[in-house]
Amino acid sequence: MAVHVREPKHMKPTSRRQFGGLALSAAFGMEAGDAPPANEVLKTIGSLRTIHGDFSEKRVPDEQVEAVISASVRAANASNMQSYSIIVSRDPARIEKVTGYRGNCLLLYCADLTRLIDTAKHMGYEFYADNMDAFITSCTNTILAAQTAVIAAKSMGVDSLLTNGIHRGDIERHWALLDLPQKSCFPLIALMLGYAKQEPRYRMGRLRGPGVVHYEQYHRLTKEELQTIVEQHDDKEQHLYLNEEWKKKGYKHYLDWFYRDWVTGRKPTAAEGPTLRRLKKSGFVDSMSIVE
Amino acid sequence: MAVHVREPKHMKPTSRRQFGGLALSAAFGMEAGDAPPANEVLKTIGSLRTIHGDFSEKRVPDEQVEAVISASVRAANASNMQSYSIIVSRDPARIEKVTGYRGNCLLLYCADLTRLIDTAKHMGYEFYADNMDAFITSCTNTILAAQTAVIAAKSMGVDSLLTNGIHRGDIERHWALLDLPQKSCFPLIALMLGYAKQEPRYRMGRLRGPGVVHYEQYHRLTKEELQTIVEQHDDKEQHLYLNEEWKKKGYKHYLDWFYRDWVTGRKPTAAEGPTLRRLKKSGFVDSMSIVE
Repeated sequence: MAVHVREPKHMKPTSRRQFGGLALSAAFGMEAGDAPPANEVLKTIGSLRTIHGDFSEKRVPDEQVEAVISASVRAANASNMQSYSIIVSRDPARIEKVTGYRGNCLLLYCADLTRLIDTAKHMGYEFYADNMDAFITSCTNTILAAQTAVIAAKSMGVDSLLTNGIHRGDIERHWALLDLPQKSCFPLIALMLGYAKQEPRYRMGRLRGPGVVHYEQYHRLTKEELQTIVEQHDDKEQHLYLNEEWKKKGYKHYLDWFYRDWVTGRKPTAAEGPTLRRLKKSGFVDSMSIVE
Repeated sequence: MAVHVREPKHMKPTSRRQFGGLALSAAFGMEAGDAPPANEVLKTIGSLRTIHGDFSEKRVPDEQVEAVISASVRAANASNMQSYSIIVSRDPARIEKVTGYRGNCLLLYCADLTRLIDTAKHMGYEFYADNMDAFITSCTNTILAAQTAVIAAKSMGVDSLLTNGIHRGDIERHWALLDLPQKSCFPLIALMLGYAKQEPRYRMGRLRGPGVVHYEQYHRLTKEELQTIVEQHDDKEQHLYLNEEWKKKGYKHYLDWFYRDWVTGRKPTAAEGPTLRRLKKSGFVDSMSIVE
């Protein structure tokens, strides 16, 4: 059956079939039977879930860690520059200092141009990476590799936690703990590998309709669609909410809790934050000598 | 056999077995027979390759595009915020304007907080995302989803091109072409899906030794290791080089061409570049009212 991609204006917000996983939504004009058969890769992706620090003591075998790394570097990357570093730690004390979580296997993915800069110098060249383009390209290369590692690990029965919690607290600790280069290197995301101590009770849901997927042009959400987003987050079956604090607190909607209590720390600031300061120190922010 | 992860100091730079793909390197203390059996997912990842605009006319079926999107949104993301937008285009003219390449399927992945901001406003809250942390977190969420799409597509026999070439030329064209929100939205990477017109002659190689993978602490490359990197790039069997221009031009090393001719445009600048300017316009750079 030929199915034409179109904006799903007739989505029924209360229908569970619109969301998540590999089942194609009836809202997109397809019946369940039209979905391509889920192959092993799609099944693996569909089974991804985050283990929030509830890793068991079971040690991830070294050969599986190496297989994950070998898969990880296969990700596409700009000009084959591989402008990242993967710092592997099997030391639980170090891992806890870096991530705040207990575990026996950390792959810390850093956007990193040091190898390229040092190789240039070794050959008598200079390689300039002191700008936001270099940072964004490196971040992209880094995360493409990190997600490849996540999927490779899952295929071997190894679960994961991706956390950018490494940016909380004193971000400078990573340079001291791991001897990171002061310039052109930024620890972007921590990937912990391990085995779930307890099975999560459910798989988190995802939005995949308007506001996430747009067709041909950006579609700004209407009031009705915004209200649908609010209601989707309250729907127990869609599993979009992080926890049930909002119910305990008597909020009408999950997003009341989310905006009032969860992201409450995000206020406009008169000063630049520690991340931007660190990026400037690392040389990733272009010269400020001309400001518009 | 138990294998302990250690820094591979005894790597033999001329051995092809150190690199790429799923074969674990003898340099890591393993014999080939120790490699975990490659499952379907690892095989799919191992077969990833970039199609540089040589897509055939064959149309990617809409239902496969939707299956790719459904897989893509399954990627982990911070606080289940899904701070990205995926703009799908099946219009070859539009695709060429955005990417510079011909094709019939584009997924443009944008770091985007607009849905979160608009939903907050709809509920009577304010959601502040005007800082570098929001940008980095959104970029991470975005690329995790993009690479999941790449792997999902490949599992269905659909090849891909990831390109950040969208940042070249007048970056502002995307806002006009796609009606992107002026604030809190940045087109990060274009993913084109299609079928190869011609099979690439070989799969690109990757570095995966010192300078890419570090154990417990960052390891700055020695002179000998830097020289090894240079020689690895010259090795035809390792397929690390982008093309053979360096041979035609009579350069001694591939990296001579890379540093002299390929990245030659990267010079220190007295002014901030267009990407940083655009990020400021989008509100992703913290207030500049206090500068260290």
